[in-house]
Amino acid sequence: MRNVRCKIAYDGSRFHGWQRQDGFTSVQQVLEDALLELCGSRITVYGAGRTDTGVHALGQVANFHLSTRLSDDRLRHALNAHLPEGVVLSRVETCSHEFHARFSARGKRYAYMTRTTRFRPPFGRDLAHWVNHPLDHAAMRRAANDLVGRHDFVAFSSTGSERKSTLRTIHSVHFLRRRESLAVVLQGDGFLYNMVRIIAGTLLDIGRGKLSCDVIARALVRRERAELGATAPASGLYLVSVLYPERVFVGPDAGPRGNPGLFQY
Amino acid sequence: MRNVRCKIAYDGSRFHGWQRQDGFTSVQQVLEDALLELCGSRITVYGAGRTDTGVHALGQVANFHLSTRLSDDRLRHALNAHLPEGVVLSRVETCSHEFHARFSARGKRYAYMTRTTRFRPPFGRDLAHWVNHPLDHAAMRRAANDLVGRHDFVAFSSTGSERKSTLRTIHSVHFLRRRESLAVVLQGDGFLYNMVRIIAGTLLDIGRGKLSCDVIARALVRRERAELGATAPASGLYLVSVLYPERVFVGPDAGPRGNPGLFQY
Repeated sequence: MRNVRCKIAYDGSRFHGWQRQDGFTSVQQVLEDALLELCGSRITVYGAGRTDTGVHALGQVANFHLSTRLSDDRLRHALNAHLPEGVVLSRVETCSHEFHARFSARGKRYAYMTRTTRFRPPFGRDLAHWVNHPLDHAAMRRAANDLVGRHDFVAFSSTGSERKSTLRTIHSVHFLRRRESLAVVLQGDGFLYNMVRIIAGTLLDIGRGKLSCDVIARALVRRERAELGATAPASGLYLVSVLYPERVFVGPDAGPRGNPGLFQY
Repeated sequence: MRNVRCKIAYDGSRFHGWQRQDGFTSVQQVLEDALLELCGSRITVYGAGRTDTGVHALGQVANFHLSTRLSDDRLRHALNAHLPEGVVLSRVETCSHEFHARFSARGKRYAYMTRTTRFRPPFGRDLAHWVNHPLDHAAMRRAANDLVGRHDFVAFSSTGSERKSTLRTIHSVHFLRRRESLAVVLQGDGFLYNMVRIIAGTLLDIGRGKLSCDVIARALVRRERAELGATAPASGLYLVSVLYPERVFVGPDAGPRGNPGLFQY
């Protein structure tokens, strides 16, 4: 029995999230269906984390246990041939039995993609959020700096989400701009439910001058969701990579050939 | 009565081509429906040229006659508010009564977009053609040079298309590369049915070494479709701009803010 780790990219607009649910097509389900067709048995695929409906992945990671004589490369080819449009395995490798996509993970990198074209973009509307006003990037950067470090992010989570601790560390926040696209890339040891989308919505409100630069610092102290901006739509959110101790699955720009770049939606 | 000229971008995968057809949603139809809702009367929209199902436009041009007190800018806003996802008017302007989108046109610029990522791209599969092999760009450029000039392009048209003359002038062929995307941009005084897709399919076959560099020159002399490559899929084709004598509607890179760039699919 091999423990197989894989890296997965998917268009979240085509799936009802990562997790298997009755009556809906999820990414986990199409992967398990592909394994069933290939191996004739039901094999559970463990993902590094759930993504909601509409949320995309460039580098989701999962593992599963399998007996096969196929090489890693042939296995990747065979599975990709059984996967539907909108999901692709970009890497498959046999790893040690200690590896678990979720429990071994030490952090994640997310990107939130926004377009600021004057007109509603006719292309790729499910692949980025669109705002029809210019953004004050300097103000957004200033505010984003307050996120970095270890904080209680309870204000940055949707109510109803129950977690033992709401302490999280954000390692870095980067802004990537190209033409009228903006990617805010966050890396941290973990993210609460809707945390990246609330951060993105707040930064966009700061960028348009609707909120002041200090709301983030204030919300971290007061722990009140109400201080912050709206939860930004799922369409702009990308799980870029999952970080593991022995090795980092690197982000889009350092990725191998075939890794769809951040701006290549 | 004003003669209104507009520039239109659309995602061809959402429409059954430009031309109104019973039982299918076309771009012409949604524009005429938007005018009907706005003005209460049926107004014919004249396009510069038809595009097939799946073919996109960055700068289709159309005109229509309308009595309204709205400024051009307000008219654009109002029409965009009535248009569905995937189509947007990027420019609206009142012009002279002599202007006719189709009969005044002196040429067109098309782009054919191909991605050469190693893996099937999970995103935007309707917005570019994908080939899973590297391309010899030098060979493609050499072959493409043979297209430039005035030639009988009968070999580059689908059978069944009836035209008085198959003589056309291609002014230029440009190659734009970014990462694993390639755009072949052609400008000419007119294009036969499927001509750009046959050129693209042939160049891609040359790029992968399946056809030799001289097939284009040979097909121009022998006038035989069989010499050439397959008709490339509609998903990669973009009508970039339409050229008029008094002014050129310029291409994506010189376009105004809001014009979706060639690579911004």
